[in-house]
Amino acid sequence: MASLLFLNPNPLISHRSLFLKPYSLSSIPKTITTTFSFRAKCSLSRRPDYIPNRISDDSFVRIFDTTLRDGEQSPGATMTSKEKLDVARQLARLGVDIIEAGFPASSRDDLEAVKMIAREVGNTIDEDGHVPVVCGLARCNKTDIDAAWEAVRHAKFPRIHTFIATSEIHLQYKLRKTREEVVTIARDMVGYARSLGCNDIEFSPEDAGRSDREFLYLVLGEVIKAGATTLNIPDTVGITMPTEFGQLIADIKANTPGIENVIISTHCQNDLGLSTANTLAGAYAGARQLEVTVNGIGERAGNASLEEVVMAIKCRGKELMGGLYTGINTRHIVMASKMVAEYTGLQVQPHKAIVGANAFAHESGIHQDGMLKHKGTYEIISPEDIGLTRSNDSGIVLGKLSGRHAVRSKLLEVLGFELDGKELDDVFWRFKAEAEKKKHMTDADLEALVSDEVFQPQVVWSLGDLQVTCGTLGLSTATVKLIGADGAEHVECAVGTGPVHAAYKAIDCIVQKPVTLLEYSLSSVTEGMDAIASTRVLIRGENSHASMHALTGKTVYRSFSGTGAGMDIVVSSVRAYVSALNKMLGFRAPTVKKTASAESSQASA
Amino acid sequence: MASLLFLNPNPLISHRSLFLKPYSLSSIPKTITTTFSFRAKCSLSRRPDYIPNRISDDSFVRIFDTTLRDGEQSPGATMTSKEKLDVARQLARLGVDIIEAGFPASSRDDLEAVKMIAREVGNTIDEDGHVPVVCGLARCNKTDIDAAWEAVRHAKFPRIHTFIATSEIHLQYKLRKTREEVVTIARDMVGYARSLGCNDIEFSPEDAGRSDREFLYLVLGEVIKAGATTLNIPDTVGITMPTEFGQLIADIKANTPGIENVIISTHCQNDLGLSTANTLAGAYAGARQLEVTVNGIGERAGNASLEEVVMAIKCRGKELMGGLYTGINTRHIVMASKMVAEYTGLQVQPHKAIVGANAFAHESGIHQDGMLKHKGTYEIISPEDIGLTRSNDSGIVLGKLSGRHAVRSKLLEVLGFELDGKELDDVFWRFKAEAEKKKHMTDADLEALVSDEVFQPQVVWSLGDLQVTCGTLGLSTATVKLIGADGAEHVECAVGTGPVHAAYKAIDCIVQKPVTLLEYSLSSVTEGMDAIASTRVLIRGENSHASMHALTGKTVYRSFSGTGAGMDIVVSSVRAYVSALNKMLGFRAPTVKKTASAESSQASA
Repeated sequence: MASLLFLNPNPLISHRSLFLKPYSLSSIPKTITTTFSFRAKCSLSRRPDYIPNRISDDSFVRIFDTTLRDGEQSPGATMTSKEKLDVARQLARLGVDIIEAGFPASSRDDLEAVKMIAREVGNTIDEDGHVPVVCGLARCNKTDIDAAWEAVRHAKFPRIHTFIATSEIHLQYKLRKTREEVVTIARDMVGYARSLGCNDIEFSPEDAGRSDREFLYLVLGEVIKAGATTLNIPDTVGITMPTEFGQLIADIKANTPGIENVIISTHCQNDLGLSTANTLAGAYAGARQLEVTVNGIGERAGNASLEEVVMAIKCRGKELMGGLYTGINTRHIVMASKMVAEYTGLQVQPHKAIVGANAFAHESGIHQDGMLKHKGTYEIISPEDIGLTRSNDSGIVLGKLSGRHAVRSKLLEVLGFELDGKELDDVFWRFKAEAEKKKHMTDADLEALVSDEVFQPQVVWSLGDLQVTCGTLGLSTATVKLIGADGAEHVECAVGTGPVHAAYKAIDCIVQKPVTLLEYSLSSVTEGMDAIASTRVLIRGENSHASMHALTGKTVYRSFSGTGAGMDIVVSSVRAYVSALNKMLGFRAPTVKKTASAESSQASA
Repeated sequence: MASLLFLNPNPLISHRSLFLKPYSLSSIPKTITTTFSFRAKCSLSRRPDYIPNRISDDSFVRIFDTTLRDGEQSPGATMTSKEKLDVARQLARLGVDIIEAGFPASSRDDLEAVKMIAREVGNTIDEDGHVPVVCGLARCNKTDIDAAWEAVRHAKFPRIHTFIATSEIHLQYKLRKTREEVVTIARDMVGYARSLGCNDIEFSPEDAGRSDREFLYLVLGEVIKAGATTLNIPDTVGITMPTEFGQLIADIKANTPGIENVIISTHCQNDLGLSTANTLAGAYAGARQLEVTVNGIGERAGNASLEEVVMAIKCRGKELMGGLYTGINTRHIVMASKMVAEYTGLQVQPHKAIVGANAFAHESGIHQDGMLKHKGTYEIISPEDIGLTRSNDSGIVLGKLSGRHAVRSKLLEVLGFELDGKELDDVFWRFKAEAEKKKHMTDADLEALVSDEVFQPQVVWSLGDLQVTCGTLGLSTATVKLIGADGAEHVECAVGTGPVHAAYKAIDCIVQKPVTLLEYSLSSVTEGMDAIASTRVLIRGENSHASMHALTGKTVYRSFSGTGAGMDIVVSSVRAYVSALNKMLGFRAPTVKKTASAESSQASA
């Protein structure tokens, strides 16, 4: 490989310098005493006006969210257009600077989803005057760039993000192109994107972490000349160490001709668990755009997670990173995390930093001892800072006698959902039915019901009745009544290896769309034997819904998730399956009507 | 606070130096070109002989696993003695240098569990001549230290780990002690531990990351004089940045009197998602013991995860960290991860680095394109390196006609379980029963059955028969037959809000031990409608099984998990509940007989 020609003659020294500052101990002040009296409480500084290739305040770091593109292409994370729109609205509410809404060339559905987000979210100015940039991904070819531009051009701030690999290993084995060819393609395609009228172009040299430095500076310098405004440096395979990645950014900043006229960006994969640290090292070294995903989802071990990067900057940016800050309103983090987990089916582990179920759970002892005496003993971030309300904090306790108004208030106050009209009716009646069976409805119970009603795709089939017999003694039998879009009732029965198998077979007899069940999971939402169970399934239809993978260009088949809630696990399993089928059957719908929930959530932003 | 008195007069400069090497750009060679032709393949260097306070090879880093102590105290992660022994054996197989087996003063059960691990695992020398150190945690008081010594003293290499907080915030609000008092206590208690005959003492200044540096050097210097052999530096609240933590280790190394005679250790919490990066920065700065947990479990956002730290050192230690290496046999990582997830109920997210379900899952396109042409394009660690075998890799496909021998071979070859005698019989008959219903048994199906049979507590109650009726139309009813330890059959029926509620109520009528159901979850093990479902429940008995929290000394109540597998989700739910009840009812058993599985897994090590 060509890069072997440039080996440093004294590898030990350069490696030390790459990894950590050598400890010239004489230079260290004897008493570096840092005080940690803080719990995160920086007030939001005003966000500088958006200019593609520069930021008026050098301490401001842009947050570029790629949940809808990189996150959505991870196995099983397919979202419908409506779900993508919901997520995009939540990202806008979070105050994300740039939303990468998809890869428009991958399929017509993707293009339409990005276009819808560009039109709606890309033109909705919030009360602080902020409107996010809407970005579409494109490989370095005219077809992709045309599709991306068609999708994003209606946004107030449209951006095209184009990429090509620059590492030797990718040039040789994937692209089969020479360095000269790659430089020409990159320059020409950035120029082509500008020629369409787009003045905000991001360019990524894929696998930059393993690319020859001199070649990298050359490619980047050329695309700057051609009109790129942001240069994104991905650690595509997730193997760099923090100081090594920081050094890469610093080197690019020091050696790329024209770099002072563009924004440098990071995009770190998490294969060794270092994506957050790498991203922060990049910011410290001069990157002013950080690419992240909610919950850190993405292919393989995912990407740097928005909540970790943002909270680290919020907690330590002022003190340790030269005053860096972001425009994120962190109080919307928890809702964004829940929504993305719900829609993609990629649940976060209990010990996930910031948004895991245990992240703020202290064993009772600690609360009584350190915690109550002084919150700072163990808690460095206050739960309220990320929008986490503790169960029944609001004081409203719901029971079966609660009225519509109490349910509506609780939803708004504690959970942040604002529902009206039919959606409120649906949730209210489900609530009454469950409350008949259960004494105390907790916030989490209610939230599960809301998710079940509100986060649902358009209805093609709905569940009428279900009757099941099962156990160790005999054959499991299920009888299912489904109601079609036309109101007609269909009843079928089937025998299976268990109650869910039997019920799903009965549904298949009615729906007549062959699918494969890829995943099935179920968890209780709250404590207690009469807790509401939330079920999630992932299905894939036969020979349908092809999409294209961004990095390889190969065809991948979409899978669809569905969720259902209820106190009967068989019933909730059936609801989830029907929901996934509806999602699959409704996926191709080119436009999604603006629902009441969408409007109201917009209003509450 | 006193630390305010020592503020650096030029904060900007010191902050820069704390965070990252300043970029004196003239000193950066123009062509730092690193080649990444590797996929992790370092051969295992020979592990230096164990001497508590020094390591003959300065590049060797000890791995200290605290899954059984810090991990087990996280909410809901309680393990039985038998489970702890299984995990300890797996840690020994991994080649962990030190196993922190528990906090013996917390309860009699804990003490007995640590003692059992010290006796068995602490005296089993593997084929490479390695036997792990067995360590017990103790607060800085004689009762705790006595308990720890009683528990670990039978190991070949016993260690006592004692700790006291040193940060101002903890001194003021938690300990209510002066600095002088803390120094005296620390020195005296380390001396006391040595006086018992223990020559391997680890000392931790809790909340070291927020402690005044000069005071920290003083405390550490005093405990070295008193006989401490390892000094562990915890980032208790998980707020340090990598270079900041590296600097802390470097400062301690540079300024603590007598530090050259002891080992420095790291213990990093993950509250900002930086624990792996912080741990590696600590190692680079001179720490030669790294405290980690399998899957990164632990309170709040958990600890640095063993698999991330070990694989990062394996991948980059030679090249970027001055040749650092560990003694871990990484091929046992996957099994350790599965076992810990199974026993603690803390599942890892799909995008968890190294051990997540998606960590090695590439969308099909990538395989055909980059991957097959050259594995290094996207894969930096080979799945085999961590012991991950892909489904049906062995070529043995099991069906209902497969015999005992085929099942045994499959278990051994692919899954690493070596079963014989009754355990093989049990698994074999369960296999036959399920295979009757299902055409193809995948490795994952088989593994779920093995987990269900082998990872079970001692049987107090076992499931006879179950019959359930449920659905949207009527009241869910379950009839359950349980068989007691004496062989007597008990039958009860109950009505509930769903089939599981009904069945659990029926079981409660028979068992008559009031419990609270804390968590319930269920997931399919494989694709397809007739997949085996694995259910997990977490219960807590009334007024029983108190334990003490290590850091606060407060009482916490243990909870017990149980798992069950089967094609009928109601049946698997009932199995899980019976398993959790058995675990709770059998928890107090002081000694656990050496089971066939334990012996055979020892033999296969």
